[in-house]
Amino acid sequence: MGDVRNTSWMERYSASEVYTLRCRVLDQPGMLGDLITAIGHAGAHVGTISVVGLDSRFKIREVTVYCKDRAHLALVLQAANACEGVEVVATRDEVLEVHRRGAIRTVSRLPIRTLTDLRMLYTPGVAAMVARLQADPSAAWEVTGVCDRVAIVTNGTAVLGLGRTGVLPSLPVMEGKAAIFAEFADISAVPILIDSEDPAVVVDTVARLAAGFGAIQLEDIAAPACFQIEQALQDRLAIPVLHDDQHGTATVLVAALINALAQSGRRREDCSALILGAGAAGCAIARALVEFGLGDVIVYDSTGPLYRGRTARMNPYKQAVAEITNRRNLACPLAEGFAGRDVFIGVARPNVVSPSMIRAMAPSPLVFPLSNPVGEISVREAIDAGAAIAADGRTINNALAYPGLFRGALDVRAAAITFQMRLAAAATLAELAEGDDLLPNILDRDVHRRVADAVADAANR
Amino acid sequence: MGDVRNTSWMERYSASEVYTLRCRVLDQPGMLGDLITAIGHAGAHVGTISVVGLDSRFKIREVTVYCKDRAHLALVLQAANACEGVEVVATRDEVLEVHRRGAIRTVSRLPIRTLTDLRMLYTPGVAAMVARLQADPSAAWEVTGVCDRVAIVTNGTAVLGLGRTGVLPSLPVMEGKAAIFAEFADISAVPILIDSEDPAVVVDTVARLAAGFGAIQLEDIAAPACFQIEQALQDRLAIPVLHDDQHGTATVLVAALINALAQSGRRREDCSALILGAGAAGCAIARALVEFGLGDVIVYDSTGPLYRGRTARMNPYKQAVAEITNRRNLACPLAEGFAGRDVFIGVARPNVVSPSMIRAMAPSPLVFPLSNPVGEISVREAIDAGAAIAADGRTINNALAYPGLFRGALDVRAAAITFQMRLAAAATLAELAEGDDLLPNILDRDVHRRVADAVADAANR
Repeated sequence: MGDVRNTSWMERYSASEVYTLRCRVLDQPGMLGDLITAIGHAGAHVGTISVVGLDSRFKIREVTVYCKDRAHLALVLQAANACEGVEVVATRDEVLEVHRRGAIRTVSRLPIRTLTDLRMLYTPGVAAMVARLQADPSAAWEVTGVCDRVAIVTNGTAVLGLGRTGVLPSLPVMEGKAAIFAEFADISAVPILIDSEDPAVVVDTVARLAAGFGAIQLEDIAAPACFQIEQALQDRLAIPVLHDDQHGTATVLVAALINALAQSGRRREDCSALILGAGAAGCAIARALVEFGLGDVIVYDSTGPLYRGRTARMNPYKQAVAEITNRRNLACPLAEGFAGRDVFIGVARPNVVSPSMIRAMAPSPLVFPLSNPVGEISVREAIDAGAAIAADGRTINNALAYPGLFRGALDVRAAAITFQMRLAAAATLAELAEGDDLLPNILDRDVHRRVADAVADAANR
Repeated sequence: MGDVRNTSWMERYSASEVYTLRCRVLDQPGMLGDLITAIGHAGAHVGTISVVGLDSRFKIREVTVYCKDRAHLALVLQAANACEGVEVVATRDEVLEVHRRGAIRTVSRLPIRTLTDLRMLYTPGVAAMVARLQADPSAAWEVTGVCDRVAIVTNGTAVLGLGRTGVLPSLPVMEGKAAIFAEFADISAVPILIDSEDPAVVVDTVARLAAGFGAIQLEDIAAPACFQIEQALQDRLAIPVLHDDQHGTATVLVAALINALAQSGRRREDCSALILGAGAAGCAIARALVEFGLGDVIVYDSTGPLYRGRTARMNPYKQAVAEITNRRNLACPLAEGFAGRDVFIGVARPNVVSPSMIRAMAPSPLVFPLSNPVGEISVREAIDAGAAIAADGRTINNALAYPGLFRGALDVRAAAITFQMRLAAAATLAELAEGDDLLPNILDRDVHRRVADAVADAANR
């Protein structure tokens, strides 16, 4: 069991860069085999192979390869060019092509073919819509795009696993999220980069431009500012405000945990979980697991466990987590903290958990090393150390949750995305997983529709 | 001559509301004629007529009608239902349908079909794009959507002819503009509603979120705040910031004037113009006409002409206009101001100019009553009073200019949209007009492409 069964080969390796090599290959039997073998020996995976041209002596082939980084690509190119009868004539960076000119664009719903189209869309026809909104602001949900429009707000302080990149470098991430919103949930998302690390400035800025949106997704904002910003905006605005790094991740984790508990024959109230990391995701997962009804939860940060009475490196958000977790109020170091735990969840840093820590857990534990792009321990090592189920950030993908969470909330004009709505999303995701998968197929549009419907139902309850 | 030749019948009337009537009509010869005649007698124009169903006795027809307002529609419905054998069974508001759920939406450039697509678009593949931007922020023009993304910023203080509506009612206008950007110039525009009338707050807010955009269009912001906001943002940002109500309108007016001068055999340096209105459009047109090289320009507001030494109801922006206009520094009232002028441009209020004022102008004057939706004088009255050419806001449409202005500026990563760029746009629009039209066909995509190319060339000169 474990993550391995559940994922394609691409999921199992950190081959995150994708290139297409255009190769001029001597048109003789055996030449292609040599080329592909050479690429494999250079450690790269091969995807699609196609013939795009030929003449009397050569075929022009395009070969897609998956590499770790540019240095790895250089080795692959060297290996390919070293093959007798092969010349790589061009290389295309497929990730760059996906992001070239941005992952998203704005389109008009109506093709403007006639002057009447133009005059209905814009002046003078649009004046009737303005008058309607002056008389009844709530009509905005009918006659404008707020019903589908979400602001993806970041200040660039906690981008992917890269930390404080500043706002501009975070833009491809926000555009990628927006593309996922569009494809999976027909949501028109807009990246909003706010160039300030002052939480009050971020809050004021978002509050001032919120009228044009039906919901706000906060993204890649560092803790503890993220908690303060989310809470202040939820207090000020009558539309959902959700920090995805907290609640998107927690929702998908709960979904996976529901199935992992069932598959390993555990009852939630009998289980104890150790969470490593007390940032945005760690605190949100702790709260979610307590509300979900797990027997006990203990949260560690780099200083040690959160406990009532701890004073070193605390903040009000960690304090609140300490109040509801760690039943026995333990203060023991991390290595001891693993003893007898059923569930491990890592949202901290790569490679900080050893096989011996996993072996100290209860028999056949459930292990979720979610640090990105490399987990706290590899899935393979966790399984080898006795984990019944292990899944990392490649499986626990917040893009399984957030499109449906926002779609469902928008569909019923919810004022907030509550824990009950997130739990409904998690239960639906768990239910839609097939066989002994922990989670359903993220590419299945129907999954996102079902999540949205469950979220909308929960909002209306 | 005049506006009439240049426009469809729809352009000639303020029939800005469009409805489709679903009618159950007795299937006998003559019935349809009765119905259409009745609608015409009720003062409505008829567009498309189609048959959408029939049974043994009745045809179901859809008839599109153009009305002035809802009260007019009620009269039309009454007239239609009064026809023997006719029943209107449903009415569809076509303007509402155009704006339902918003005029624009966000789409993904890439259909997400495989896990590889997802992993290139989002984590882990996107990390390579983040790293690239950390190393070289200017790569944002290649690997993000800033090359095509424009913020349409308003604070809802001067919306259409309606004034201070607040931000939310202005949203359909901003969405309409964004749809035009998308259709005419492949620009991804985003409405940004800033809920503040304080110019400093608007400036700060826009400056903070500017990183995600390649240019800023200011829209429907009242004078004089619009001047202050535009100037402050131009000083702070390294991307174009353009207030469309000023420069979009001025650009199209200059284009029309180039052709009107030629058609009436005038030289610009011999001409004198009177502008009525010293708001955003009036001040911008005055500056543009002086730079364009018109012999003299005089600007009137509700207090009288702008002149050097005037103290009543001035502001620094009117003062600056007074410095470069009104050569003879006249202080005479409006009615006297018309004497001998070659050109009239109204950007003030409906129906404030009389035929006698037009008759006081130089022989065969050029008259542009641009107040929306009803001009300072009607085109018909102006022609009857001796105007050689008259065109109102239905002809002088800023949507002829702004898509190409922004497209051209973005194409060359211009830091500003200068007067030279706007003049290039105006000259191109003038050149592309056919026959004795003042302006080219706004629906012709090639017109917008040609404007963009001219703007880009001017930026590079």
